[in-house]
Parts: sequence; structure tokens; C-alpha cells
Amino acid sequence: MNCLLRNLQKDCAKLLRNVASCRHKSDNTAGGVGVSELDISGIYPPIPTPFHPDESIAYDQLENNFNIWNKIPLKGYVVEGSNGEYTYLSPDERVEVVSKAVKLADKDKLIIAGSGCESTRDTIEMTRKMADAGADAVLVVTPCYFKGRMTNESLIQHYTRVADTSSIPVILYSVPANTGIDLSPEVIVHLAPHPNIIGMKDSAGDITKLASLVFKTKNKNFQVLAGSAGFLLPAYTVGCVGGVCALANILGKELCQLVDLFHAGRYQEALDLQYRCIAPNSAITKQYGVAGLKKAMEWFGYYGGPTRSPLLPVSQAEEKVIRNSFTQNNFLKN
Amino acid sequence: MNCLLRNLQKDCAKLLRNVASCRHKSDNTAGGVGVSELDISGIYPPIPTPFHPDESIAYDQLENNFNIWNKIPLKGYVVEGSNGEYTYLSPDERVEVVSKAVKLADKDKLIIAGSGCESTRDTIEMTRKMADAGADAVLVVTPCYFKGRMTNESLIQHYTRVADTSSIPVILYSVPANTGIDLSPEVIVHLAPHPNIIGMKDSAGDITKLASLVFKTKNKNFQVLAGSAGFLLPAYTVGCVGGVCALANILGKELCQLVDLFHAGRYQEALDLQYRCIAPNSAITKQYGVAGLKKAMEWFGYYGGPTRSPLLPVSQAEEKVIRNSFTQNNFLKN
Amino acid sequence: MNCLLRNLQKDCAKLLRNVASCRHKSDNTAGGVGVSELDISGIYPPIPTPFHPDESIAYDQLENNFNIWNKIPLKGYVVEGSNGEYTYLSPDERVEVVSKAVKLADKDKLIIAGSGCESTRDTIEMTRKMADAGADAVLVVTPCYFKGRMTNESLIQHYTRVADTSSIPVILYSVPANTGIDLSPEVIVHLAPHPNIIGMKDSAGDITKLASLVFKTKNKNFQVLAGSAGFLLPAYTVGCVGGVCALANILGKELCQLVDLFHAGRYQEALDLQYRCIAPNSAITKQYGVAGLKKAMEWFGYYGGPTRSPLLPVSQAEEKVIRNSFTQNNFLKN
Amino acid sequence: MNCLLRNLQKDCAKLLRNVASCRHKSDNTAGGVGVSELDISGIYPPIPTPFHPDESIAYDQLENNFNIWNKIPLKGYVVEGSNGEYTYLSPDERVEVVSKAVKLADKDKLIIAGSGCESTRDTIEMTRKMADAGADAVLVVTPCYFKGRMTNESLIQHYTRVADTSSIPVILYSVPANTGIDLSPEVIVHLAPHPNIIGMKDSAGDITKLASLVFKTKNKNFQVLAGSAGFLLPAYTVGCVGGVCALANILGKELCQLVDLFHAGRYQEALDLQYRCIAPNSAITKQYGVAGLKKAMEWFGYYGGPTRSPLLPVSQAEEKVIRNSFTQNNFLKN
Repeated sequence: MNCLLRNLQKDCAKLLRNVASCRHKSDNTAGGVGVSELDISGIYPPIPTPFHPDESIAYDQLENNFNIWNKIPLKGYVVEGSNGEYTYLSPDERVEVVSKAVKLADKDKLIIAGSGCESTRDTIEMTRKMADAGADAVLVVTPCYFKGRMTNESLIQHYTRVADTSSIPVILYSVPANTGIDLSPEVIVHLAPHPNIIGMKDSAGDITKLASLVFKTKNKNFQVLAGSAGFLLPAYTVGCVGGVCALANILGKELCQLVDLFHAGRYQEALDLQYRCIAPNSAITKQYGVAGLKKAMEWFGYYGGPTRSPLLPVSQAEEKVIRNSFTQNNFLKN
Repeated sequence: MNCLLRNLQKDCAKLLRNVASCRHKSDNTAGGVGVSELDISGIYPPIPTPFHPDESIAYDQLENNFNIWNKIPLKGYVVEGSNGEYTYLSPDERVEVVSKAVKLADKDKLIIAGSGCESTRDTIEMTRKMADAGADAVLVVTPCYFKGRMTNESLIQHYTRVADTSSIPVILYSVPANTGIDLSPEVIVHLAPHPNIIGMKDSAGDITKLASLVFKTKNKNFQVLAGSAGFLLPAYTVGCVGGVCALANILGKELCQLVDLFHAGRYQEALDLQYRCIAPNSAITKQYGVAGLKKAMEWFGYYGGPTRSPLLPVSQAEEKVIRNSFTQNNFLKN
Repeated sequence: MNCLLRNLQKDCAKLLRNVASCRHKSDNTAGGVGVSELDISGIYPPIPTPFHPDESIAYDQLENNFNIWNKIPLKGYVVEGSNGEYTYLSPDERVEVVSKAVKLADKDKLIIAGSGCESTRDTIEMTRKMADAGADAVLVVTPCYFKGRMTNESLIQHYTRVADTSSIPVILYSVPANTGIDLSPEVIVHLAPHPNIIGMKDSAGDITKLASLVFKTKNKNFQVLAGSAGFLLPAYTVGCVGGVCALANILGKELCQLVDLFHAGRYQEALDLQYRCIAPNSAITKQYGVAGLKKAMEWFGYYGGPTRSPLLPVSQAEEKVIRNSFTQNNFLKN
Repeated sequence: MNCLLRNLQKDCAKLLRNVASCRHKSDNTAGGVGVSELDISGIYPPIPTPFHPDESIAYDQLENNFNIWNKIPLKGYVVEGSNGEYTYLSPDERVEVVSKAVKLADKDKLIIAGSGCESTRDTIEMTRKMADAGADAVLVVTPCYFKGRMTNESLIQHYTRVADTSSIPVILYSVPANTGIDLSPEVIVHLAPHPNIIGMKDSAGDITKLASLVFKTKNKNFQVLAGSAGFLLPAYTVGCVGGVCALANILGKELCQLVDLFHAGRYQEALDLQYRCIAPNSAITKQYGVAGLKKAMEWFGYYGGPTRSPLLPVSQAEEKVIRNSFTQNNFLKN
């Protein structure tokens, strides 16, 4: 009964958002076409997929994690976008996890689903499935296998076709550390006016590029999100409006607080918090990846659990380095 | 009726090969364990997947291509391993193309199916399906999305589990231009004695590494295949025994001839042919990729056809460069 | 007579600074050793070396440029550190240009001389010569020819020996785009407490690393300078205290103003200025380098002149791109 | 007296070579211009500079080493080209070492002197000095500091001006591991017909590129030398005519023997020797560099001695790895 009611509330909230999306953009470039106005500003954890020891998906543990996350003023969740080991799931599993997340997330949280595949047709199809599963927007990673031929022209065509056919807003996603492809400013600036492309997540962390993108896409209803907690505050200072941060899986409250401090003009406090986040963030991302993230989640009451092979769990020595990054920055007691 | 007979012959040939595989390796390291002795020496085209203009698979055109290829003394075919846009197919399509290729290939040709996926479990499953579809061996590309954590230990575990569970021999595959992962000599030398790992395809083209691998894996029943026609002859001179070459889709006869010249000790003639192959090979691989390959195939009587998006067809200017590389080296008239 | 008086004033200013340098650091790590307290916060142009058409040094034009620069509230000048084509000068020329700059610079400006060479002995010797020539500090670029062996240990030893023997303060310099070497946080944090190492210039622009360095070296009297105008404001927001910016050769006044706005809490105005600087900065650095810089200087009343070979002048098409970057951002009329 | 006689013989040999150089090229492209015909085929050690413990140059030890090298059928010596820590010498020292090498080398050996500097003018001047010092040819490494602007056009102009003004033949040198610059085939093919550019040393080891260069420069009197013993035999098989190999400092006799075996058609023996050379070569080049080379030289009766800072000597653990690479391949007893 509770569940029914909750879903009803959720559906209403979505309806309201969709109504909002029907309004027209003021942007002249787009020429008055119907556009999405979904406000995606805020902090999102790209949630990892919990597995049982036999590597099957641990949906019960997902619920446990959402129960904690939902109490934090996160803007929403990114599900199977990159960090979630989405490349290790079957297409059906990928949709199912998103479907479950839609149910588990509080009605006032957004669900941004990863729908990027290598081919345009698969991405279009996956985007449709994610919309059907109740996602509010999709995050579309760059295709990358044929690196040498992912030209600007090719990527523009890819994203345009996906956005043209999607019933929910599209967010671009550039993560060169995984894909070897860095979306060029030319492509991004070209795509920004598209009425159904509402922003991007950039994980490369080149602050000059981020500033330049914000500058060049202003008045285009284009929202830039930082892809890592390592440069969250600098990203805000150059005009980014949110962050999709692995660290938000663990320190969601603190990252939301960092943003609040920034908006309140309490800059030095925000900076002090930013400083403390750098080492823990590095430990669970570029140093030890999702295995490190899952290990650290367990120290904070979340379910982490194993990774799917070939990802290996962190070693004891690695675990110690990760833990130190949290204790030395006073996020955890020794 | 003819078809039935042909399949029967094919099955018998496979049976014979499987019987051969049941014999024991002479290699002492492997300690007398039952091993695969499949001889994979020779030339293979990694066949592209033909598409109709609507991007659906053009099985009829596949048959047309096999009718030409089957008359060339190729050792076999690599299907959906890398070049075939396998990342653009659904898992079911991938298996179906292999299944079709098994039927279309002459009974004396080997079918090496690509079965590499990002996760170990998906790779194991795909390997099983490829074996069921009639493939003689699988080519397993390195997983690569979580680049920073594809450690030697992780890759050794991945390949060992795949090889342990596969009913057909496994061939390692390293193609850093696409994956960003270069299988290290340590991993390869460690895996070489595995009774069910019979060789590797290396597309990086570091001749020192190739020579070193041949040297370090001798007496391990480990067969090294060059991954490109650009360095096919040098690869043979340091002990490689074959090549999986995109150019073999077009110049299969010539590449087989190159190998024959080498074995016959007619070295200068082999070298002259090698020289002429470099520019055309470059044009259809690193310069213009599979779109270039498909365009060039059409000049030689094969069906090339379109690529799936986001891969774009070559432009007219690019087409001219590709064509010149063939005409200037006397593989084609102006 | 005027000149004599000016030099006298200058010497007095230096004496005062040197007296300041004799005071002791409060830093406990350094254990009360006599240390340098030179305040290097502020904006510096890394001045290019002006050449005549025959590629000899145009000292007269250098004077012309200094006459303009001296009227701008720049903190000082970096001479033959990187941008000045220092690798194209003989050791004697390098010292002579610094010597000349010391004479031409206003007495209240600092002269930071580049003294980095490949070998430790040459760097020590060049540092001595720069001190003798009147430089206030030296900027020491990482040695880089034997990239594979520039280990942390090797670089720590190098910088320690240079700093131990230098009579003027030492500033570390990391510019991977030119050297292929990115000074690691470990090396920098290790060297920061050295009483004669007072800071660093970082041109890589990884804002997370910059923030982390400021955080890890606080209380070490270690001053971090941004190496480019592209990320000057973000660098200030994470605690950097200055910038060595090629763009300051042209837009020195504007960059000083940006810093003033930041310090005055007029953040949005600072940000607007920062946005406008990104494209011009990119044009005269990573896009077209010192040749682009010299061309653009001429539009602002400075002498630019030719480059030494093998650097080529910019083409007309390139010149147009550079000019557009200035006009479109309202630094120049069409 | 002996010395006088020796120098006289040496001068005569040079005279003969210079007479040879006055003959005209048969190449039509060069249009009958007077060209250099210096035959540079064969094996060269790029000799390291011996230092005393105080890092001054140990000329006495240089003589000791030449006494051993001169007895080996090496074609000559490369002096201060790359490996010799030339970037750690003053310009005067660089010339002096070459001058000394000219005296110490047997009259029938060639001296190829490194004369590459960052600027064209310095390279021209250094080339003149090397010719005056008695070098037979110069090896000119690519300038590299301003990486982003070392365009094809810039490099073509650089080498053309150096070759135009040099009294001795010029050899191109590409060593991307140190410089970050890989001379493009376009530049090399453009420069090959120049009457005073007689060949190149390529250390990148891309065998496809080497084959392609030999093919595209045939009939241009252009001789391609392998830059490492790791791929010496493959290089010969695709038409290279020699090698400048760090390993030749230690195993000069063996590398000359490898070439003899190749020319005698005893291919399998050549290959067996090639295999054995890969690990030792790797140990003294990309793994441990010139410090490793110097350490290993001592086990074979040569003077190795210290490196100049910031290069560090190899550690004991590293020394063990290097030694193992020689013992396991039967070049040294345990």
C-alpha cells in the first residue's frame, strides 16, 4: 500500500517535470522548438551495482543503500552510466537495475540512466528502454571502440540522432580515462543548442575547457556537470552547476554541504572541505577504481560487495592506503 | 541435397580436428594434460559484417563474399573478433553471424570466432555459444573499459577462467589502438603453457616484442599471429606462423602468395610484395578503418556496403587516397 | 646620470629583499634554518626574446617592450625560463638577456631567471650566473632528455643540489607539454620544506593537482603559481598566489585587474574577464606558440619580431585565427 | 712517431672517402648535383661518455675502451649523438670528445658525430665544428622543445638548411622516446633526395615504417639504420643496412656476427642470436638507460663509470636484473 502510494507520488512528480519540459526554450538558435528544461543542477552519486559473492546482482543491498542515500539532499542518481560497471551487465540487467533504482529512489530525486552503447542504433534503443523504465534523463557516453574514426562529424551525427529520437533529455558524457575519447569543444558547442541535449558530464577535469564550455554555451540551456569530486569546487567557480561524483556514494552529505557553502558565499569553508576530499576521491577513482569505492562504502554503512571479474578486489595494502586517505582527512576514525 | 552433403563433410572435418585436439601435448611444462593442438598457421581475413542500407545484416552478401574467399588458400576466417564491428552487434547477432559463417566457409577452413566481452562471465558465456555455433577456436580481445585496473593479475585470471571453461581452443588478442590495453609479455608468457591457450593475435606491431614472445614461448605450443599485413613478412622472419590481416579480405591471394614465397626461400620476391602491401593496408586500417576496407572491397568484386553508425562512410577525397594506394602499388588499374 | 640613480635605487630595493631573506622561516619542518621569504605573489609575463630579421638578439626592442610593461602593476618578469626560446640561445646569450632585463626592469619588479639545464652541474653553474647577473630568483625547469630515468629520486636529488648551492631562491617548474615530464606531487611535497625552494610554476593546469599541492604544502612557505592565463582564476580560487602567463606579455593590465577583482571579492567580474582570456591565451600558447605570441604583441604596441629557426612564423590563416580570438573577446577592434 | 703515422693513415683514408663523395649520384631526382656517397652500412656503438667520480670527462678511460672496440669489425662510432649524455656536456666538451674519438678510432672506422641542437643556427655551427674536428658525418637529432610547433614544414626547413651548409654528410635521427618527436614519413621522403642527406637512424622501431621508408627512398642513395639491437635483424630483413645500437658497446662482436650470418644466408643462426640479444638490449636501453649500459660495460672489460647528475647509478636490485639478462642468454657466466 505504502509502495503504491509512493509510486503514485513519484509519477506525479515526473508528470510535473514533463509538463515543464513542454515549455519552450527562449534560445533563439533552437528557433522555438519544444525543449527540455529539466534542471539537473546538484550532486549525484554514480551508483555502483551491488553484487553477491557469485557475481549476481544484489537487489536487496541496492535497497539498503538507497535507504541511506535518500536521506541526503542529493539531486538524484546516475545509474549504469559509467561507474556502475555497466559494461559488465547484459542489456537486460542494465535496464533492470535502472528500473529498480526508479522504484527505490525518493520521488524528489532524479534518475539519470546511462544509455550509451557503441552503435547509434543500440544507443537509441537503450535510451528508449531507459525512458520506459522511468528514467528522467539519459547520460550518453562517447562510443569509443573505433577510436581513430570517432571524428567530430561522426560524434555530432551520433548524438543528434540519439537526441532527436529520445523522449527524455540527453546529457553528453566524456570520460577519456576509460574511453580514450575526449569530446572536443567543437562537438559540444555544436550540440548544445539542440533542444533535447541539456548538458554534459565531463570527467577529464581540464578546468580551462570547463570554463570555456560554460562560456560558449551560455544562453543555450546547457548545464555542465563536473565528473569528479576532485575538482568540484573549481568547477562551480567557473560556472558548472553540479557534479556526478563517485565520492558522493560515500560522502554525499559532505559534497552537498560543499555546494551549499559555495552558494552561501562561505568560500573558505568550502575550500577547506574541497581540500579534504581530494585524496579520498583519488583513492576510489583513478587509483583503485570501483573496487576501491566498494571497499570504502562498507566503512560508511553502505553495502559495497565484490566486483565482477575481471575487476579484482583491492588488496590489503591497497585497502590501507584508501582507508588512510579517509582517516587523515577526518572523514573516518582510525 | 548438395548443402546437406557439404555440411556433412564439414562436420567430419571438424570431428577429425577435435580428435586431434584430444591428443596430448608433448610440452613438458604442461605436464601431459590434455591439450589443443589445433594448427592455426596461415592467413585469415577478419571479415567485416555486411550491412544493408538500413543497417540490418546482409546475409546474402556474406554468402557472395565467402564464394570468392573460399577459392583462396586462406587458412580460415576470423569472425566478429575485432574488425567486424562486433561491438555494434547485439550478442545474438554476433552469434548468428558466426553461425552463418560456419555454414558458408569451405569445410577445410577454420572459423575463429571473436568471443571477448568486458566481463569474464559474459566472455565465458559467449565462448560457449561460439563453440555451439561451430567455431573452431575463439579469439578473446582484452577487456578494456576499466583501463587503470586491467592489471597483469586481473588479465591472467580473466584468460585462465575463460580457457579453463572453453570446449574449444582460446587465442589471446591484443589491439591497443582500439582498446588502449597492450597485453604485457609477462601475462602472455604466463598464459602460454595453458593447454587450452594456443596462441595470440598481436596488432600492435612491435617487432621486438613479437620476436621476444616467440622466443619465450617456444616449446609451449604457442602460435603467434601478426595482426596486420603491414608487418606480415617481418613477423614471419621472427617466427610468427600466420597473420590475421584486414587486407586479406581484399588481397587474400597475394598475402597467401607472400607466405608461400617466404617458405620457398624466395625472400626478395616476398619482400617486394610486402613493400607493395604497406600503403593499401594502412589505408584500410589505421587511416580509414572498416569504412575504408568496405569501400575498397567493392573494387575487387566483394560486397562492402555501409557501416553502422556512428561509423561514417569514407568521403570522396578519402576514397581517392585509398584507391591511389592500390593503383600506385599495381593492385588495381587506374 | 639618470641611469646611475636608477640602478642605485634598484640595488637598494634588492638589498632590502635580501635582508628580508635572512630572516628565519617559522616552519618547524625546516628546523629554523635560514630561509628565503621572497614574496612572489602576482602576475609575470614570461617575456619572449626579441630577434632581428637575421635572428640576432634585438636588445633595443627589448627596451621598447620594457618601457610599456613597466607601467603595468606586474609583479615582475620571467626571463629565459621557457617561453623565451631559451633553448635556442647560447649559454652566454641566455645570461646576457637576463642581465639586460635586470637593467631595463623597474626597480620594484622582480626578475625571475630561467636557469634549468639538462645536467645538475650546468644548472648549478647557470644559477650562479643568473644570481650574478642580478636575478631575484631562478625558475628551474625539469631536466627531460632521459625521460625514462627522471625518477622521483633523481629529480629530488637534482633540485636539492641546485637549491643547496644557490644564493637566490629557487622556483620549481613543470611544463609537461614541452618536456614530457610532469613533476609528481611526491617530489614537490618532498622539496617544499627546503629553505631555498620557495614555490613552483605549474603549466600542466590540472586543477585538482594544484589544489592538492597548495593543501599539502601549507605552512611550508611554498607559493604556487599558475603557468597559464587559461586557468588563472580557478588557480587563485584553490589557493595559488600568482601566475606566469604568456598572455601577460600582451594583456598584462587585464590579468592584473583580474587578480584585483578576485581579491576585492568581485568574483563575477573576475570570471567574465577570465572567460574572455581563454581563447586568446590558447591561440598564443598551445595552438600557435611563441610565434603566435610575437605576432599578437605587435597589435598591442610591443615588438614581436621573428622567431629563431626551426620555429616558423605563423601563416596568414593562423594569424587570422589569432586575431579573431582577440577581437571576438573585445580586446581588439576588428 | 707511431701516433703521427696513424693520423697520417687516417687522413689518407678520409681523403679517399671524400674523393668518393665528389662523385655524382645516379639518382635522377637529384638531377646530377654533387652528392655524398659515404657508405654507412654496418654496426656502430653510440659510445657513452666516460666520467670520473667527480663527473669530469675521463679521457684516459675513453682510450681504454677504444682499444677494445677497434679490434671488432664495427663500421665506426657514433659520438655524442644521443646516448653519450650529450645534453649533459657543454658545447665545447661535446666537440672535444668527438675530436678525441677521431684520434682514438682506427683509421678504417667512421666517426659519426651528433650535432643536433634545438636551434637551426646552433646545429649549423655545431655541424661545422664537428666537421673541423674530423667527423665523417653528422647525426642530427630532431629539435623538440617546442613540440607543438615542430611541424613537417618546420623540420624540413631545419634539416635542409643544415644539410645545405654542411661540408660532411648529414644523417637524420628520430628518437621519440627521448624527444617526443617522431619524424614523419612525409618529412623523411621529402628530404631523402637531398644530395647531402645520406640516411637516417630510427630508434622508434616501428618495422612497418622502416620497411616503408626503405621502399619509398630506394634509388635515393638513402641508407636506413636501425636505432636499437632489439630489432636489428628484422630491420635488415626489410632493407636496412646497419644499426646504431647501444648494445654494440658491449656485444659489438656478436652484433657484427649477426649481420654476417644474415648476409651469409645463415638465417636461423642469425635469428637465434637476435633472440638472445633482446633482453640484454632492453635492460641497457629502455629499462635502465645509460646508467645500466655503463654498469654492464664493466663486466666485459670496458670502463663504464658514473653518470652525470641527475642521472643516477643503477641500484643493486636493478644491477641484478641487468646481469641476469646477460647470463640467462649466455653472454656472461653467473
